[in-house]
Amino acid sequence: MSLLHRLTSSRDPVGRQFDRLIYFLIIASLILFSVETLPSAEKYESLFLWSEYVIVAVFSIEYVLRSVAKGARYLLSFYGVIDLLAILPFYLSLGMIDARAIRICRLLRLFRMAKLQRYGTAWRRLRTAFADIRHELAVFSGFTLALVYLASVGIYYCEHEAQPEAFASVFHSMWWAIATLTTVGYGDVYPVTVAGRVFTFIVLILGLGVVAVPSGLLASALVKQQESDNPEGGNEG
Amino acid sequence: MSLLHRLTSSRDPVGRQFDRLIYFLIIASLILFSVETLPSAEKYESLFLWSEYVIVAVFSIEYVLRSVAKGARYLLSFYGVIDLLAILPFYLSLGMIDARAIRICRLLRLFRMAKLQRYGTAWRRLRTAFADIRHELAVFSGFTLALVYLASVGIYYCEHEAQPEAFASVFHSMWWAIATLTTVGYGDVYPVTVAGRVFTFIVLILGLGVVAVPSGLLASALVKQQESDNPEGGNEG
Amino acid sequence: MSLLHRLTSSRDPVGRQFDRLIYFLIIASLILFSVETLPSAEKYESLFLWSEYVIVAVFSIEYVLRSVAKGARYLLSFYGVIDLLAILPFYLSLGMIDARAIRICRLLRLFRMAKLQRYGTAWRRLRTAFADIRHELAVFSGFTLALVYLASVGIYYCEHEAQPEAFASVFHSMWWAIATLTTVGYGDVYPVTVAGRVFTFIVLILGLGVVAVPSGLLASALVKQQESDNPEGGNEG
Amino acid sequence: MSLLHRLTSSRDPVGRQFDRLIYFLIIASLILFSVETLPSAEKYESLFLWSEYVIVAVFSIEYVLRSVAKGARYLLSFYGVIDLLAILPFYLSLGMIDARAIRICRLLRLFRMAKLQRYGTAWRRLRTAFADIRHELAVFSGFTLALVYLASVGIYYCEHEAQPEAFASVFHSMWWAIATLTTVGYGDVYPVTVAGRVFTFIVLILGLGVVAVPSGLLASALVKQQESDNPEGGNEG
Repeated sequence: MSLLHRLTSSRDPVGRQFDRLIYFLIIASLILFSVETLPSAEKYESLFLWSEYVIVAVFSIEYVLRSVAKGARYLLSFYGVIDLLAILPFYLSLGMIDARAIRICRLLRLFRMAKLQRYGTAWRRLRTAFADIRHELAVFSGFTLALVYLASVGIYYCEHEAQPEAFASVFHSMWWAIATLTTVGYGDVYPVTVAGRVFTFIVLILGLGVVAVPSGLLASALVKQQESDNPEGGNEG
Repeated sequence: MSLLHRLTSSRDPVGRQFDRLIYFLIIASLILFSVETLPSAEKYESLFLWSEYVIVAVFSIEYVLRSVAKGARYLLSFYGVIDLLAILPFYLSLGMIDARAIRICRLLRLFRMAKLQRYGTAWRRLRTAFADIRHELAVFSGFTLALVYLASVGIYYCEHEAQPEAFASVFHSMWWAIATLTTVGYGDVYPVTVAGRVFTFIVLILGLGVVAVPSGLLASALVKQQESDNPEGGNEG
Repeated sequence: MSLLHRLTSSRDPVGRQFDRLIYFLIIASLILFSVETLPSAEKYESLFLWSEYVIVAVFSIEYVLRSVAKGARYLLSFYGVIDLLAILPFYLSLGMIDARAIRICRLLRLFRMAKLQRYGTAWRRLRTAFADIRHELAVFSGFTLALVYLASVGIYYCEHEAQPEAFASVFHSMWWAIATLTTVGYGDVYPVTVAGRVFTFIVLILGLGVVAVPSGLLASALVKQQESDNPEGGNEG
Repeated sequence: MSLLHRLTSSRDPVGRQFDRLIYFLIIASLILFSVETLPSAEKYESLFLWSEYVIVAVFSIEYVLRSVAKGARYLLSFYGVIDLLAILPFYLSLGMIDARAIRICRLLRLFRMAKLQRYGTAWRRLRTAFADIRHELAVFSGFTLALVYLASVGIYYCEHEAQPEAFASVFHSMWWAIATLTTVGYGDVYPVTVAGRVFTFIVLILGLGVVAVPSGLLASALVKQQESDNPEGGNEG
């Protein structure tokens, strides 16, 4: 097998080393991206620029190698498109477009992490569990949206007069509905009237049961999935 | 089959198109309802009025068609009553009653969404799962109410002296109890005395276990329900 | 069977009516207790006093009837002691002790609600589910306590210098630890240093998994319990 | 069997009494550690110093006894290293190092609690359940980290201009992302722009499902584990 094919195959030891380099550069690229936003980072601008050049160069070489090795099958695949989107903005921005905003496409390469071989079984189970409960998830998503909407309308009528700024419209009230039903509760908006507080009580008692169900569904479905893989219930170790 | 019967049957292609139009108008009606509350919406008032006329007109035609096609069976059914409640306030308010407050009945038509054919199996499972755990849900609802009450009484005795405004009575304290036991924690009221904080600790440790159980019950019961539908545990695809 | 025995038997129609009266008075007593704390309730003081007399009178009659009908078996039972504690403070306070603080014992009668016949099966399952997972619950309670302690010590070292008031000692830091690990997050105390925020991140990622497990355990164990009652997995209707 | 061997064996009644003394001293040591940080504790400094001497003395004697009884097998074991770390700082700090900061190693002895005999079965099940779901936990930890990162980047772009202090960089935004995705919601930072609030809505709807799954997984896996221990589903009591 040629070096080209060995490099781009995730089953070959050489290819796995190459994959590791790419994973490392993706992580490095994410960290650089964050560090660059620090207020004190401006004086190291040229350093960031050079790291940027190196990362895009390696990603470009990788893209070309994979294109040559696998052809159209890679170019048109999900990962092929992502890999292109991760480097294209750099070449486009050489002209005049503001680099930083566009470079955000690089984050898409995070998806590549999903190809880590070790977790293949866990991924397959996750997909099957999702498929099993997709209708239930759809129903509960519908419930959640309806609940957020009705909570917003209700609190608007209860609180609009008392707090005309915070609950200026149904859309403003939605911010409260989201922060409350997810139990985040920032505390920037909260009901002050008796009607609004009684309404909040009812919405929360009904709503918590709805909002927390999907993650419980997913957890139960995943464990069930595992059970049907190992019917003896033993450690798969 | 006559056009009338085809229109009102959800199994006929024509009827399904008509259903889709109704679903679209329900959603449009909900969005209009929210947009209208925006402070900047006043200048488009006539536009909202005309959309209102159109929506009520179509809903009225639908109501008449279904009444003619299915007769008393429809008029006295759950959806028949809802469909009437969604248009009746409009005709009543032509006289003198304030339109906006009454139009809220339109939101009831959200229930119609529950008739979406695709999710029939998910709905059936949800109903069975609910029936299976209804006694457990009742017991935990009882626990939750008792817990909210006892937490309110307890914090009232701990904090009333230190914060006579926020914890003015057991009812005022209930607002704190709800925001705390649901873990929303707006931060508008919180204990400041040592006794109140120790009490909060105990209430939270006991309470979280109680308040979060119902959604876990529902999730587990739903997955169990699915398991008994597909005993092989495979993807139902 | 004598009227006395019929009254105190929960299987006899007369006894069930009597039980209902008692349940009603327990609820009425709880509501009165809360209403009395309202700032505007002072002018109705004599009304509250008379309700108090009536409730204690009926509870006392009930206590005497049950004692005569069932003797020592009732007097020494859990409910016998609770029923005594619910009336005793009234007679003691006829002397000089402040009535309100002592009357709180009346709340103990809430336990009586647990005897509601309809939920007998749900209670039995709950007890069995609890027994099944009692060791796991003990282990996770230990984890939770250790986590609260370690989080308090850690945040004390991170934040004590920056916020000497809010994080004055490990005990003061515990208030933060409880509000954070239960995800209530009132927002009265929160870390401001980088070290404190990184520590919070680690504590939350590890801690959420620990604190939320017990309610999930209980929910799963309850559904499992039900499954072994109805092995066909059908609706028990 | 010699007294030495009886003392260090957790199966012998004498050894169990000795273990209880050690557990008691570990708890006493943790409490002392917290009490000492109280602002009002300074005047009792000599008392704390003497308790410190006693605790370290007993821990040192225990360490010597176990070393003599079990030799290298103990010295090199996990608990052997922890027991050494718990006393070593005391002897090192006799010279010049600040005692308080180093004494924190004593907290490590909390791990010893894990050896409590009664919960042996619960611990074994916990380990097996962990092993069963370790890949799923790894995948969801990866999801959580990616989600925190992407949420931080997203909110940085939405809010940086409106709140240049609170969202000064991607790292500053991470503090918001953690407090929001764990639903703690202190309320010290929150989005104020429409874009930031819509982004928060999307992140929360997707994120809650991810962040809450691991504890649900662990709960379901533990109950499954128990089921395969007691296939009849009965109370193991």
